[in-house]
Amino acid sequence: MIQITLIQIDNYGPWTVTPNPRRESDLQALQSRLYCDLNLQFGAHKGLVFYTRFDNLIAITNGIDLTTHERIQNSIKNRYPFTVSMAVASAKTPYEAQKLATRKIQEHGSAQDEYRKEVLDVANDFLDNGYVQLAHVDINNITGTLTDLENAYDTYLSVKEVQLKLMKELKKYGAMGFFIGGDNFMCPCNGMTESDFINMFNDIEESTGVELKAGIGIGKTAEDASNMADIGLELIRDGKTECQVCTLNYENHSIKKKSPKNFLCPI
Amino acid sequence: MIQITLIQIDNYGPWTVTPNPRRESDLQALQSRLYCDLNLQFGAHKGLVFYTRFDNLIAITNGIDLTTHERIQNSIKNRYPFTVSMAVASAKTPYEAQKLATRKIQEHGSAQDEYRKEVLDVANDFLDNGYVQLAHVDINNITGTLTDLENAYDTYLSVKEVQLKLMKELKKYGAMGFFIGGDNFMCPCNGMTESDFINMFNDIEESTGVELKAGIGIGKTAEDASNMADIGLELIRDGKTECQVCTLNYENHSIKKKSPKNFLCPI
Amino acid sequence: MIQITLIQIDNYGPWTVTPNPRRESDLQALQSRLYCDLNLQFGAHKGLVFYTRFDNLIAITNGIDLTTHERIQNSIKNRYPFTVSMAVASAKTPYEAQKLATRKIQEHGSAQDEYRKEVLDVANDFLDNGYVQLAHVDINNITGTLTDLENAYDTYLSVKEVQLKLMKELKKYGAMGFFIGGDNFMCPCNGMTESDFINMFNDIEESTGVELKAGIGIGKTAEDASNMADIGLELIRDGKTECQVCTLNYENHSIKKKSPKNFLCPI
Amino acid sequence: MIQITLIQIDNYGPWTVTPNPRRESDLQALQSRLYCDLNLQFGAHKGLVFYTRFDNLIAITNGIDLTTHERIQNSIKNRYPFTVSMAVASAKTPYEAQKLATRKIQEHGSAQDEYRKEVLDVANDFLDNGYVQLAHVDINNITGTLTDLENAYDTYLSVKEVQLKLMKELKKYGAMGFFIGGDNFMCPCNGMTESDFINMFNDIEESTGVELKAGIGIGKTAEDASNMADIGLELIRDGKTECQVCTLNYENHSIKKKSPKNFLCPI
Repeated sequence: MIQITLIQIDNYGPWTVTPNPRRESDLQALQSRLYCDLNLQFGAHKGLVFYTRFDNLIAITNGIDLTTHERIQNSIKNRYPFTVSMAVASAKTPYEAQKLATRKIQEHGSAQDEYRKEVLDVANDFLDNGYVQLAHVDINNITGTLTDLENAYDTYLSVKEVQLKLMKELKKYGAMGFFIGGDNFMCPCNGMTESDFINMFNDIEESTGVELKAGIGIGKTAEDASNMADIGLELIRDGKTECQVCTLNYENHSIKKKSPKNFLCPI
Repeated sequence: MIQITLIQIDNYGPWTVTPNPRRESDLQALQSRLYCDLNLQFGAHKGLVFYTRFDNLIAITNGIDLTTHERIQNSIKNRYPFTVSMAVASAKTPYEAQKLATRKIQEHGSAQDEYRKEVLDVANDFLDNGYVQLAHVDINNITGTLTDLENAYDTYLSVKEVQLKLMKELKKYGAMGFFIGGDNFMCPCNGMTESDFINMFNDIEESTGVELKAGIGIGKTAEDASNMADIGLELIRDGKTECQVCTLNYENHSIKKKSPKNFLCPI
Repeated sequence: MIQITLIQIDNYGPWTVTPNPRRESDLQALQSRLYCDLNLQFGAHKGLVFYTRFDNLIAITNGIDLTTHERIQNSIKNRYPFTVSMAVASAKTPYEAQKLATRKIQEHGSAQDEYRKEVLDVANDFLDNGYVQLAHVDINNITGTLTDLENAYDTYLSVKEVQLKLMKELKKYGAMGFFIGGDNFMCPCNGMTESDFINMFNDIEESTGVELKAGIGIGKTAEDASNMADIGLELIRDGKTECQVCTLNYENHSIKKKSPKNFLCPI
Repeated sequence: MIQITLIQIDNYGPWTVTPNPRRESDLQALQSRLYCDLNLQFGAHKGLVFYTRFDNLIAITNGIDLTTHERIQNSIKNRYPFTVSMAVASAKTPYEAQKLATRKIQEHGSAQDEYRKEVLDVANDFLDNGYVQLAHVDINNITGTLTDLENAYDTYLSVKEVQLKLMKELKKYGAMGFFIGGDNFMCPCNGMTESDFINMFNDIEESTGVELKAGIGIGKTAEDASNMADIGLELIRDGKTECQVCTLNYENHSIKKKSPKNFLCPI
């Protein structure tokens, strides 16, 4: 079971053109700052946010309770010229979870309903056995084959093409894919196997000529899973794995385990 | 002639995994903050920046001289754990300009060359008759047909599909397309005509079923052009135009013309 | 027992002038951003940070364990061109706690020791019965008597004069005072009584002519205490209290008590 | 003649407690972000902003015209939950200039008038011969005598004591003093001589025991003056000057003079 939160700016479109269209560089600054803040604030609790469409963001929030969601929602209202709504849902696959979360937020009204403000709702009770599985996917040697050779727009176009292909393929497995910069994609993929990835990468290579690899991490939170995925990817890059996919589970990963720090000032 | 600046984080990939992979929520916060800052700083001089791949960003910089680029480059070094390189180029089409800028930056070494730092170079002399043409494209009634009906990932997937189609079509005209949030795309398109857009939108509608419209703005700077594009799009939304494309030129647009403000403290 | 964390930028002074003095507007942007981020990140765990000297910041961190400190320290390293050191201490009074924290950080070397990096240490074990007492102090009717009448610098000077007086007086009680903008001061003051405040305010009024008032809040965390202090101050402003000091304890404050939210996805 | 801009958040106090007092860590984050942004945006035009009381900020804006002020004011409205008012004034001394600016903003109504929004006004015409004189003042060897020896609060108290003394002394000369972090003060001081500083520092040393030094910079903009002040201060630190005051004029300073960069894309 993975827990997904859909975050939606309330009635954002109309605001951007009232009373007149607002300066585009300001809007870009505003949207990217919101994304930055949400990552710092969910990140403080080991969550991870993807910018998606900037006015609709998707977060992995295993281990983050409703009160924390409410505090973040409140903090946005305190510092931004708009408010956000949030819906939380859990499911066996990431795709299913975001579907439940979307439906829950839609029940409260349109994204452009001027009276729907600061919805905070939960689609379902979380059962148990929660975990996050994340694949950190990248393109083999993009710097040597694209960035340093092709022009910036064509490289960008290639990456976007891979992204779309990847997004669609992942959906077949109930997984999702998000671009995280450079040639990197972060893919919530609870339930997918290494074989699934190898098959998928073969298909993508055949249709686009681009070779992908993936570190897959499993953990109780997005941060733990993401750290494991990163380490897995490093192992592949260093040639320490047999294939282009490497899975690490935080539970079994002794290197990262530290002796627990003393807890200060219990409250 | 449009002026394009390619901005590239120096040796970023290796930094993100040295000595160990850095927390993903921090990297997302860092990258989006850089994008935010660049929009505020180029925006202060009427430029506009697109996040592209986050480690490679493309900006429209008509009217912004090299000293101002250098000051922004310096400000990034003063506040970030990395530096950025920049190359500036001008050409008749946006695509050609970014191509020249990319080549110029590549001449100085690889994006992952650890000794290549803070390149600031210019591909060519700017001749004259500079202007920016920007199309603000959006999807007809996305809130009613997608956001409020479909799940967030499927809506996102639809938007990404349109984006890729649009990016490829625009390239045929020497233009470029960038996602700016929601269902909006900003497209530097010097030289394209209204008919080009109408034809392109017909093709896209046929192949994807999605209807697009575009406000096209022309001005001496990205900001002027973007403002005109926004107003054009509003006119279409309000049903005040004959077709789904509307072009406005800042020079001829009396509404936005204000009497010049007094200049203070000449230096 | 209050828990205080001293946060110190490592070797900051030399960095600001290497290789040449850095642009002052950049340094001010950088320092204020660090302060902003620390408040968001400690605030995510109900802490509160004061900017103090910007390169040395003091935070109230009851309820925030060492691992969380380490994660924030790490996040700063991941996004800033410098690192920070932190020392945590607990004591009966805020002044005593910051003293212990300072000594602990000093044991590791000079603030300008180029080899002392990312110290994270704890001065003492926290015992029990931890709580935060915060006084939110402001100046009576500053808008009517200063802001709207005097020039900005003289008003500022008056506020700084009150601040210095307040800081010194509070120290006599083992308390501290920090400016939080406008005419507002936030004062960690575990152990002080309402009479202490009334006496102190009388002294300050006699020597400066300025009348102060204080909402005092008590809670398990800086946020809870601060919220109570704010509500207390509002009660005074609304004339609902007998004197210029009003204390509220989060434990007894039924209004703010909500039924506990359901916990999602336990990990 | 120096040009000063007073920036005031419109009706901020009431907003912070409506409908209930807002979380203090959010307010601190919000205020410091505004300060950060204003420094980036005025800094993009070689201005410099001081945080002063956070809801009332003072900027040096020589060379920055009214249209640029308006664009910054607009950008704040586009990204913050409040608006700001601004008044600009020029005078022979910084103190006089801020006085004129304050009076101009006060003419439009109270800082807490709910109908006074986004004032942008100019107190007087700027004549000519504009320049900025800035002293960068610091405390001799504060790291060795205070930071590494005393506790953080006492060091902070010492710095605040020096600040207040310095602010008052500077006012006698029509100058102003602002804390910029660490042990540093930036002092707009058009018209003051080196002897004035030496006398003032002697007085302060006699009454507080603290030794100060100052790099004084003169330039057409706050940035030019500030850079010169920084270099002057470095010369003193390096023992390359005869006394504790060193003045550099940007006009005569050959080292910093670069051949003018080519202007791209004239508009």
